Amino acid sequence: MGMILYELKGKGELRFSPFSWRARLALAHKGLEAERIAIGFTEKEKIASGGYEQVPVLVDDGTEIADSWAIACHLEDTYPDRPSLFGGPAGRAGACFVNAWADSRLHPAMAPLILGDIFDRVDDADRAYFRESREARFGKTIEAIHAEREAKLAAWDDAMLPLRLTLKRQPYLSGDAPAYADHVVFGSLQWARCASPYPLFTADDPIHAWREHMLDLFAGMPRQAPGNPVGARAA
Amino acid sequence: MGMILYELKGKGELRFSPFSWRARLALAHKGLEAERIAIGFTEKEKIASGGYEQVPVLVDDGTEIADSWAIACHLEDTYPDRPSLFGGPAGRAGACFVNAWADSRLHPAMAPLILGDIFDRVDDADRAYFRESREARFGKTIEAIHAEREAKLAAWDDAMLPLRLTLKRQPYLSGDAPAYADHVVFGSLQWARCASPYPLFTADDPIHAWREHMLDLFAGMPRQAPGNPVGARAA
Repeated sequence: MGMILYELKGKGELRFSPFSWRARLALAHKGLEAERIAIGFTEKEKIASGGYEQVPVLVDDGTEIADSWAIACHLEDTYPDRPSLFGGPAGRAGACFVNAWADSRLHPAMAPLILGDIFDRVDDADRAYFRESREARFGKTIEAIHAEREAKLAAWDDAMLPLRLTLKRQPYLSGDAPAYADHVVFGSLQWARCASPYPLFTADDPIHAWREHMLDLFAGMPRQAPGNPVGARAA
Repeated sequence: MGMILYELKGKGELRFSPFSWRARLALAHKGLEAERIAIGFTEKEKIASGGYEQVPVLVDDGTEIADSWAIACHLEDTYPDRPSLFGGPAGRAGACFVNAWADSRLHPAMAPLILGDIFDRVDDADRAYFRESREARFGKTIEAIHAEREAKLAAWDDAMLPLRLTLKRQPYLSGDAPAYADHVVFGSLQWARCASPYPLFTADDPIHAWREHMLDLFAGMPRQAPGNPVGARAA
């Protein structure tokens, strides 16, 4: 049996979930192929054998693994002879902190900048669900969040400071070469790229240059995925 | 020639600099001893051969290394046969991100909670310098910052979220055993412990339990250092 990756479906060929992107990048890093099955926001009962509330779910030879972090750990432990995602136990521990930081700091800072654009790219069948769930979470209409995004830019730039400081000291979050810690954060940025044309970084930001390198990985797969060109913000 | 560590001097035997603590913990992790020389805020010209604006500076067999991160890298690279601070290149890269996060997120969130207490424990010769430099940095009097600290607790708790999430998933920042990523963050907490009795974490916070384990490292050296008992905050 081969592998199947259940990921989130946007309009047409758009696949913007950051968590699905992390799993996709982890598979590419390991040189593994999976059949990709896209699931709408409102059809989660179709994920694997059922009972899942979130993508991604990976099915590997009949075993179902939910949660992008668990998928990365599964791939590292099941395919140890392929390129390492973590570079050993200490690297895995560091990637776990990067993962916690991205989920708890990067996503909340980025979401207000791209939410209105995501809404435009949600599949028609999911628009009512998306509006209701996101407006409940933010306590505002999508249009109100979108209208305020310029005012959120300073907080976004500030939230990115630990990433920026690290990329001034070393070329990748994982050191001299990209690995899973990079895929975690870059997966989050693919959420932006696939769902929004809004430029997130100025051209002189080390994060911008790092992101360009990440877009070229795996024969340019991340750059070729349906989405928007990644431009630099005016300084 | 042996090693000398120049660190920051507080009142009496108090040594509260987080950066000096990181160097001290890195030395202890490697099982290395250094003569410790304490330098007041206003006598930085006495550091090593001169020209340094900050502690710590390590002098190892005549070579002077400034900056706690550079000191950790020097010790790892110079004493590879002793217990590893990083657990390999990927662990070093992850610790670099933790270091950037602690400096840019933990310190600014913690400083307002302990600044008034630090001022009480600054050496008499340094009090005028400390007041002037810190009041310029914060744009407020030390007394005003101290009076507002309860209002800063929610921001502190929120800032600690990436650390809290990570310690729910694994016992140490470095994985199954403590290493330099832990020393970085714990060194910052020793700044608090040595300079302030203010309780930072509730008893049910995984950071509190992790900190207790860290206090017991190296035969309890961090707990025995002059300072304050570490209590838990009321929930």
